[in-house]
Amino acid sequence: MATIGIVGSGFIGRAWAISFARAGHGVRLWDAAAGAPAAALAYIAAILPDLAGAGLLDGATPEAVLARITATGTLAEAVAEADHVQENTPEVLETKRAVFAELDALAQPGAVIASSTSALLPSRFTDHLKGRARCLVVHPINPPYLIPAAEVVPAPWTDAAVVARTAALLAAAGHAPIVMKREIDGFVMNRLQGALLEEAFRLVADGVASVEDVDIGIRDGLALRWSFMGPFETIDLNAPGGVRDYVIRYQSIYERIFPSTQRRVDWAGPVIETVEAERRARLPAEGLADRQAWRDRKLMALAAHKRRQVDG
Amino acid sequence: MATIGIVGSGFIGRAWAISFARAGHGVRLWDAAAGAPAAALAYIAAILPDLAGAGLLDGATPEAVLARITATGTLAEAVAEADHVQENTPEVLETKRAVFAELDALAQPGAVIASSTSALLPSRFTDHLKGRARCLVVHPINPPYLIPAAEVVPAPWTDAAVVARTAALLAAAGHAPIVMKREIDGFVMNRLQGALLEEAFRLVADGVASVEDVDIGIRDGLALRWSFMGPFETIDLNAPGGVRDYVIRYQSIYERIFPSTQRRVDWAGPVIETVEAERRARLPAEGLADRQAWRDRKLMALAAHKRRQVDG
Repeated sequence: MATIGIVGSGFIGRAWAISFARAGHGVRLWDAAAGAPAAALAYIAAILPDLAGAGLLDGATPEAVLARITATGTLAEAVAEADHVQENTPEVLETKRAVFAELDALAQPGAVIASSTSALLPSRFTDHLKGRARCLVVHPINPPYLIPAAEVVPAPWTDAAVVARTAALLAAAGHAPIVMKREIDGFVMNRLQGALLEEAFRLVADGVASVEDVDIGIRDGLALRWSFMGPFETIDLNAPGGVRDYVIRYQSIYERIFPSTQRRVDWAGPVIETVEAERRARLPAEGLADRQAWRDRKLMALAAHKRRQVDG
Repeated sequence: MATIGIVGSGFIGRAWAISFARAGHGVRLWDAAAGAPAAALAYIAAILPDLAGAGLLDGATPEAVLARITATGTLAEAVAEADHVQENTPEVLETKRAVFAELDALAQPGAVIASSTSALLPSRFTDHLKGRARCLVVHPINPPYLIPAAEVVPAPWTDAAVVARTAALLAAAGHAPIVMKREIDGFVMNRLQGALLEEAFRLVADGVASVEDVDIGIRDGLALRWSFMGPFETIDLNAPGGVRDYVIRYQSIYERIFPSTQRRVDWAGPVIETVEAERRARLPAEGLADRQAWRDRKLMALAAHKRRQVDG
């Protein structure tokens, strides 16, 4: 088993700690704010029994998983013996550049240093480092202990062996790594999400559909198949002769739509009044926190369902 | 309970028959091909026990649901007493225009006449009809007895009361109607699917990600939350202050991506060689039919899971 250094113990850092500890690794957790790692450990201790109850701890007890996670008093203690460092500091370029310089100086030569950033390309905060060949992005969807996909994004100078080793570490921990061939704004998942959201905001701004109509179309429609097949396998199975047959039969529908999608609606413009009014009518602001807890329970139930499907 | 006339007994027509019969309605099924309704009834009889086993027949027995469906020898018998007619003939404009003229002549004055078309706007095949105010599109995702979303698309002359009555019929049958404010190419779901697929094909064509990487990003990533919340609720819960807060925090990521999405990749061009080669390496052509059956079982299990979640 490896030693994992987690830098930053907010929602993403603590979630990574659960994911790596569940896989059997020793996790060392550090945060710039004193007291933050202790709060993270309390959070983790509270959620592990739920995961065990849902069958999502791979048979380990909550106590055993918790015992693999240690809060450290210094950054050096968290990363000095780590095989893999996972950085989760704020999405500010200068912060990332400074933290990565520190990590490159503190981590042992063989360690991989990964950032959880969703917004910054790895080349932007690793170019100045002596050890830049061992740096890359590993971007999860939160929380990674429930959502398997994670993007592995190399900078132009990232060693191919580092990419391969990172993907293997993730896969062995039950993740589904997306190994990108090169860095690109938005990586893969935010590009796909963005494409969908742009059309969603346009439909509402143009008065074609309501916010709830869009959510129905995905929640009670398209995402059912996507949630166990993805969009390419979906169309591959949606024509008798497979994906080429699908393209021949149906591309014209999408070609016809494309020109009308070449216009961006400012999400913060007039449309946000409509979107927010409709959302708040369904869910008042004071209900957001409860609904987030509901979401996490639903996600856990779905993860457990998918796992049973694979096992069964 | 209503009487439903189903015109065309292929995959979509027979699936609608199951959905309406399960809801307690009397269904009359007709097809231009002699023998087709009998084949549809055999198919339906084979699938109903599976639905009952998954708890998806609302407590009815397969026999009771099957007994509500009758094959008719003539189109007139199928629609003369129907309250709602659901048309499922081939996606050919002249066919739809001719069939709708017949239906408008045969159906009783109070009946609603709906088409399952995914590709044709209702105004294009109902403009010439005396009863055009009672015509519209009700577009399902197949199979409608497992996927609740269905688009209700009025032509400019469709009576608002017809739209409301159709949405109510669908909702009472367990569907989640998307009531569009006006017709638009691709309706809502194919526009959203198209936006995602355009980006998916671009990512593969540009060598940024593999076909499987895209499927992972959706199947093991984004679609997990989308499958029970939809994209708007997802972002509403993804920032402490709700959807407006999300837009303020994260719109810049998507704005930056947008210019690079203004270019269409021809899906039937060089990229289809890559997509097909990768799909066929994962699933040989001779395995497509088995995998389609696998998909239907997974979809049924997911529908049952979602229903238990709502009940529980």
